Amino acid sequence: MIAHITLTLPQFRRGFHIITEHIERACVEQLGQLPLNGMLHVFIQHSSASLTINENADPSVRVDLEAFTNKLAPEREPYFIHTYEGDDDMPAHIKASLYGSSVTVPIINGRLALGTWQGVYLGEHRDHGGSRNLVISVVN
Amino acid sequence: MIAHITLTLPQFRRGFHIITEHIERACVEQLGQLPLNGMLHVFIQHSSASLTINENADPSVRVDLEAFTNKLAPEREPYFIHTYEGDDDMPAHIKASLYGSSVTVPIINGRLALGTWQGVYLGEHRDHGGSRNLVISVVN
Amino acid sequence: MIAHITLTLPQFRRGFHIITEHIERACVEQLGQLPLNGMLHVFIQHSSASLTINENADPSVRVDLEAFTNKLAPEREPYFIHTYEGDDDMPAHIKASLYGSSVTVPIINGRLALGTWQGVYLGEHRDHGGSRNLVISVVN
Repeated sequence: MIAHITLTLPQFRRGFHIITEHIERACVEQLGQLPLNGMLHVFIQHSSASLTINENADPSVRVDLEAFTNKLAPEREPYFIHTYEGDDDMPAHIKASLYGSSVTVPIINGRLALGTWQGVYLGEHRDHGGSRNLVISVVN
Repeated sequence: MIAHITLTLPQFRRGFHIITEHIERACVEQLGQLPLNGMLHVFIQHSSASLTINENADPSVRVDLEAFTNKLAPEREPYFIHTYEGDDDMPAHIKASLYGSSVTVPIINGRLALGTWQGVYLGEHRDHGGSRNLVISVVN
Repeated sequence: MIAHITLTLPQFRRGFHIITEHIERACVEQLGQLPLNGMLHVFIQHSSASLTINENADPSVRVDLEAFTNKLAPEREPYFIHTYEGDDDMPAHIKASLYGSSVTVPIINGRLALGTWQGVYLGEHRDHGGSRNLVISVVN
């Protein structure tokens, strides 16, 4: 059985943000609860934002990851030709593919089987990305 | 139910290429149609090419992504020891892992639930990569 | 049907390591065998190690990928603020997100449908990462 729900995230500023609770809450509200046993897939329907899994505790990890990412894919590279949507646009597309557009997590005993220190991150790669739409799929 | 089909892509030149229609067409031809509700997984059986999701509209995104990728993982790095398959080979392996070997997309109402501006990209990272084999899995 | 098993890997030194056989052996030992038809998902429950798919033959690919990765995300970047867990910690978080925390592979005729030259890699990004826990999920 596969159930899909949609989740419109609140607007986040550029950077990495933990959204594990947003996802879990949407599942409880729209599905009642997670199955005892299954798989959770989260997909972001945008090409200038990403989903990844990383440390859920110290916020400095998100700050450093954002700083690294901006250095890795800087704005205003002289060779960019996709420039008319703003300086932050082409780097945002690059970051979206580097980090990826979905994550998959096992569901065991009705809970996401994340490690103790893991959380799901939204990578908001635009300065004013607006609300982002996710499709959450629960397979069981 | 899980159905697997194989798709041999035509040869693409080095760079990023939209293959959403190749995938959809293979599903229609080999499966009749997509299920109303399910998941699509696409896997590339090669370690010097990749699959990712990014913008489906302006071709300049693919051009800039390829330029960025070549700068990120350049050829003839003095420390490379895996060199006997050509200058483009080790960078191609690096790019394959950075972008990944599969994508998963929800299927809702018989259609891929991609965002309006999203398409599936083949990342062809070799100069003469030849035909690439994909395994498409439809779960419902 | 979805079956989850857990696999605690032996300790690996920092770098990339092929773990395809560890995964296959765990499936045989804990599930009896792989289904004829299905999907395999492998998830790493840590945010300083990664899973990716790359060449299974020449070990020089793993050596070069590790060298590239250390150059891409170097230690002791002056802007890092997440530094109290050691010089290798923040780069390890970065690498975990760049390469990803899970891989999905189709199962066809009771075998992983990897390409001839593909294997599953553990990316151990810490100097002393210890044993890493994987959740292996088989969907059929």
